[in-house]
Amino acid sequence: MSWLPDSIMSRRGVASGKTKETHHLTEDAQGKFHYTIGPYSEPVLVIQPGDKVIVETKDAFEGKVKTENDLPSKVLQMPFVNPQNGPIMVEGAQKGDVIAVYIESIKPRGENPRGTCAMIPDFGALSGTALTAMLHPSLPEVVRKVDVDEKGVYWSKRVTLPYKPHIGTLSCSPEIDSINSLTPDSHGGNMDLPDMGPGSITYLPVRSEGGRLFIGDAHACQGDGEVCGTAVEFSSTTTIHVDLIKGWEISSPRLENEHLIMAIGSARPLEDATRIAYRDLILWMSAEYGYDKWDAYMMLSQCGKVRLGNFVDPNYTVGAGIEKKYLTI
Amino acid sequence: MSWLPDSIMSRRGVASGKTKETHHLTEDAQGKFHYTIGPYSEPVLVIQPGDKVIVETKDAFEGKVKTENDLPSKVLQMPFVNPQNGPIMVEGAQKGDVIAVYIESIKPRGENPRGTCAMIPDFGALSGTALTAMLHPSLPEVVRKVDVDEKGVYWSKRVTLPYKPHIGTLSCSPEIDSINSLTPDSHGGNMDLPDMGPGSITYLPVRSEGGRLFIGDAHACQGDGEVCGTAVEFSSTTTIHVDLIKGWEISSPRLENEHLIMAIGSARPLEDATRIAYRDLILWMSAEYGYDKWDAYMMLSQCGKVRLGNFVDPNYTVGAGIEKKYLTI
Amino acid sequence: MSWLPDSIMSRRGVASGKTKETHHLTEDAQGKFHYTIGPYSEPVLVIQPGDKVIVETKDAFEGKVKTENDLPSKVLQMPFVNPQNGPIMVEGAQKGDVIAVYIESIKPRGENPRGTCAMIPDFGALSGTALTAMLHPSLPEVVRKVDVDEKGVYWSKRVTLPYKPHIGTLSCSPEIDSINSLTPDSHGGNMDLPDMGPGSITYLPVRSEGGRLFIGDAHACQGDGEVCGTAVEFSSTTTIHVDLIKGWEISSPRLENEHLIMAIGSARPLEDATRIAYRDLILWMSAEYGYDKWDAYMMLSQCGKVRLGNFVDPNYTVGAGIEKKYLTI
Amino acid sequence: MSWLPDSIMSRRGVASGKTKETHHLTEDAQGKFHYTIGPYSEPVLVIQPGDKVIVETKDAFEGKVKTENDLPSKVLQMPFVNPQNGPIMVEGAQKGDVIAVYIESIKPRGENPRGTCAMIPDFGALSGTALTAMLHPSLPEVVRKVDVDEKGVYWSKRVTLPYKPHIGTLSCSPEIDSINSLTPDSHGGNMDLPDMGPGSITYLPVRSEGGRLFIGDAHACQGDGEVCGTAVEFSSTTTIHVDLIKGWEISSPRLENEHLIMAIGSARPLEDATRIAYRDLILWMSAEYGYDKWDAYMMLSQCGKVRLGNFVDPNYTVGAGIEKKYLTI
Repeated sequence: MSWLPDSIMSRRGVASGKTKETHHLTEDAQGKFHYTIGPYSEPVLVIQPGDKVIVETKDAFEGKVKTENDLPSKVLQMPFVNPQNGPIMVEGAQKGDVIAVYIESIKPRGENPRGTCAMIPDFGALSGTALTAMLHPSLPEVVRKVDVDEKGVYWSKRVTLPYKPHIGTLSCSPEIDSINSLTPDSHGGNMDLPDMGPGSITYLPVRSEGGRLFIGDAHACQGDGEVCGTAVEFSSTTTIHVDLIKGWEISSPRLENEHLIMAIGSARPLEDATRIAYRDLILWMSAEYGYDKWDAYMMLSQCGKVRLGNFVDPNYTVGAGIEKKYLTI
Repeated sequence: MSWLPDSIMSRRGVASGKTKETHHLTEDAQGKFHYTIGPYSEPVLVIQPGDKVIVETKDAFEGKVKTENDLPSKVLQMPFVNPQNGPIMVEGAQKGDVIAVYIESIKPRGENPRGTCAMIPDFGALSGTALTAMLHPSLPEVVRKVDVDEKGVYWSKRVTLPYKPHIGTLSCSPEIDSINSLTPDSHGGNMDLPDMGPGSITYLPVRSEGGRLFIGDAHACQGDGEVCGTAVEFSSTTTIHVDLIKGWEISSPRLENEHLIMAIGSARPLEDATRIAYRDLILWMSAEYGYDKWDAYMMLSQCGKVRLGNFVDPNYTVGAGIEKKYLTI
Repeated sequence: MSWLPDSIMSRRGVASGKTKETHHLTEDAQGKFHYTIGPYSEPVLVIQPGDKVIVETKDAFEGKVKTENDLPSKVLQMPFVNPQNGPIMVEGAQKGDVIAVYIESIKPRGENPRGTCAMIPDFGALSGTALTAMLHPSLPEVVRKVDVDEKGVYWSKRVTLPYKPHIGTLSCSPEIDSINSLTPDSHGGNMDLPDMGPGSITYLPVRSEGGRLFIGDAHACQGDGEVCGTAVEFSSTTTIHVDLIKGWEISSPRLENEHLIMAIGSARPLEDATRIAYRDLILWMSAEYGYDKWDAYMMLSQCGKVRLGNFVDPNYTVGAGIEKKYLTI
Repeated sequence: MSWLPDSIMSRRGVASGKTKETHHLTEDAQGKFHYTIGPYSEPVLVIQPGDKVIVETKDAFEGKVKTENDLPSKVLQMPFVNPQNGPIMVEGAQKGDVIAVYIESIKPRGENPRGTCAMIPDFGALSGTALTAMLHPSLPEVVRKVDVDEKGVYWSKRVTLPYKPHIGTLSCSPEIDSINSLTPDSHGGNMDLPDMGPGSITYLPVRSEGGRLFIGDAHACQGDGEVCGTAVEFSSTTTIHVDLIKGWEISSPRLENEHLIMAIGSARPLEDATRIAYRDLILWMSAEYGYDKWDAYMMLSQCGKVRLGNFVDPNYTVGAGIEKKYLTI
């Protein structure tokens, strides 16, 4: 894409966005997948800034929901869900840097029906949960297997949804915490942000040596909020370019695509996630695009874009963005 | 527009979407504007289903912020802000019905700089407020006067924003409450939803005889969340068609435009506003588009669209929508 | 009580806490009870500062739940619940003043079983509600009739609870809003604070001529949070002394009893209610007890007392208090 | 104490509440303190059910704030705060069990002024924070050093507060997460609950082999909510008895003292923490005290007690309790 050379990644990355080596992180190469994102697991791969990695991700159910009769409550054992590839070590990455992840493509893997959506007991935005504790009996457990290819998501006889894949979980490691892969937080994690698809660059704060990049949880498509608790989860072959930006201290992930820049907040309640995202966007506009802080605040009140990632996880995720055309000087 | 005859308003309205008489609710005809939305004020107009009303709305500052030196804290006296036109009585409207408001156009009124944006002390999403009480000194009070015409919002030398007007406050009266015009709730009110612009139809629950329609608070443009607390507020000439749908009991406002249907929730915390919106959308899809409830829930998890209205008012507003192309049978 | 002459009411009230005339606001004298608290209803009584009023309050179900078979969803018609006595006009009260209400006694009225507790569909802290919207079927509707006298609340064969009555709903009128009697807010309203019993003085902000005092919703006892949505609701004969403090501008209700002072916040989410209460307590300690603001903040971190009123109403209520022994100089 | 033999710990513990061996976990024996609570750290001690452990805890500032000039932002390096003793392995403890911790005593250690309270930038309930993101400048950073002995906390010339110590942070390890010691969650952690003092028993869910008990963060006293963000933090010698209850699966910590039982919830927003606590208390009353679920729910609405732990940490903590006198059959 023509905008890529102008991206922050290309302008400021160690590799200047140029691709060097290509690595294959197959299921076999990965071996053991991870259920927490932290500094305590064994690296699976060491790469240079600018390298490309082709990753075979497993779906969030780890492939165990093969038919509509495979109820998650039967075939899964919490907290062993949402398996992650990684950690991938990026040479030279240190606390205070940023790892940039450009997603080149996300392609379906495995046999159809590859896609799985489920209503899981005591999970989802319109259900009592472990956190929003209620006295109601659980909602029914329902599994939906869905054919997926690069042309569409064949939801029902009536409805075909567009294939708009994205990566649900992406992060470097926290400094000392090891956080289950269901929870998004300031490190990234399970953000479930539809913008994190092919053509996007995500900027992740590095908090430990090598960054320790984790990736997983591909979705063939997802609505804002991922309201029932799951997207069309599927196994993917995801190709990423990874670069390193030295000395860019950011407090939570940021994203860029051809048209906009977006700051990302994860917290509860949902207004706090939104506050984080908008404040970080203002700080970003001030620091790098010459905006006076109050001017940015007032202007975003006129043209800010909000994307709801998930509001079903232990933290909710919100992206606040502005179109690049308003950033040019 | 070609979709209008297929709209719910046209299919089910008493007037079948056909325009009958045209009324002019000028500033003079309005006389006294209202700061609460309730059943205790004198009707200013009585109309028939199908009538058109051309309304002269005042801006949310009631026109008192004429220059960048007119600080809101000096020229305004709370709670006398966000003046509303109305109440307009719709003949035949009764509790349990719906009043449909199609917005035909919103045009600027008055001299330039017509637009006003302000950072008001202790108001806004990134400021301590009366509700999110903090011990910080207030943020600075800043007024921004902006030229607005139907071609653009001239924000700064650097940035011209598109003219995308909408109505910030629209509602029928609650049954017994009289709610200040700053607060959105299940009756509607100060929703600040950018989708409520020309070409949209808003469906409002009727809770008292005649419905008692209020309208005001035009915005020349607004970002998601209205983050600093105000949009580009301006005086407008707004043309609406009003119809009546008998016996359609809805619990909060709904919206329709050419491409989508949207349910609207207003509450705190923000997740509750989102829950209201998504649940109502599911109930709507079940009741009128032949969707099984769980199918709707799971499908919205793949294609639902969330719009953040405001997250600065005493309640926050969220719209949850689905594209009409997925509703056809 | 010995502390009363030292109370703020006695020290600063127009009547200096002295009782003058006694009024009887019987059910008959009240006639029509009110379901909203606002400036639009007809005064039922005019009193002088220092007068005593003996009020016959109705229970929150308006006496319609006489047996355990009288389901609220059948015998009540929302929003016509929680009937209020008043408005009582206090001569001389003006915006910017405070009306002080000392509760002398709350005695049961009517035949036993006088007390009513109920699980009402889609209401209560552990149930999906209109605001915390869920897809679960409603919890069961259950009515519990309970004998109550001044010695106890005879909950079950197993458990007798102490008779510790309080007034659930107490307020002056908002300036322009008329707020249903289920909702607490900065004017007071349905706070459901167990501290608001005999021996307490509540300070209410006056926002309109005469103050327009409303009172109702007596509880024979109530736990913190009123978790199922209702207390032991009963009809009462409540005796109050009313005084007027001129020129004391407070932003939300405050309370005093023999041992503590307490500031009261009502909002959602619950942390915002708590923030309001604690901030107001700090401002109170600073303004009137010679505390440096930061000293008060840090000291309350060591000895502040939090009482959860309700967390079931449209707003939640929290009291933040400090023992008077720490306030002496 | 006479109630101890009747406690759940004594009735159901492997050691039946009887003390066996006594261990000394001095600062030296501890060596390296921990900043995360998880399964990845080296055990420091292995004990039998029934053993007593005398623990030398460090204060939350790790002793680095020695004078009022030692500003936390200067002498501390986030996230290396709130150091924990442990992990202590309890023989026989397995996932699905409970570790019971009876606190016998908490005594001050070190030289006076031993106590430290601080306002830390961007931390505290009435300050913008990393989560409740605001655009205000930080509140001032203030350190308060306080003399503490077993007779009192000498806050100021004007005020002496009672010495009412408790343990702020107590937990077994999560199964796979390693959670920083500032964050309370379903495993326990930084709950800051004033009830967790001498004479209390805390029941902690075991999620990994040996339980991996962590303890730290003693407070000489603390108000409800720990509103400024810190209590009177001090180094302590804390004596605990530890027992093991096999096969008692609990979803979050519970507490018992002479007079009440209490369930504990940690989450955001604060209503969710309260919901967790109350629901768990209802389930507890149903499972072990013969209460019908709806009876428990309705009765707690009349006599439940709520304690606010902290509402300043990444999660807020609430205890919901009922007096034991209502539990007897």
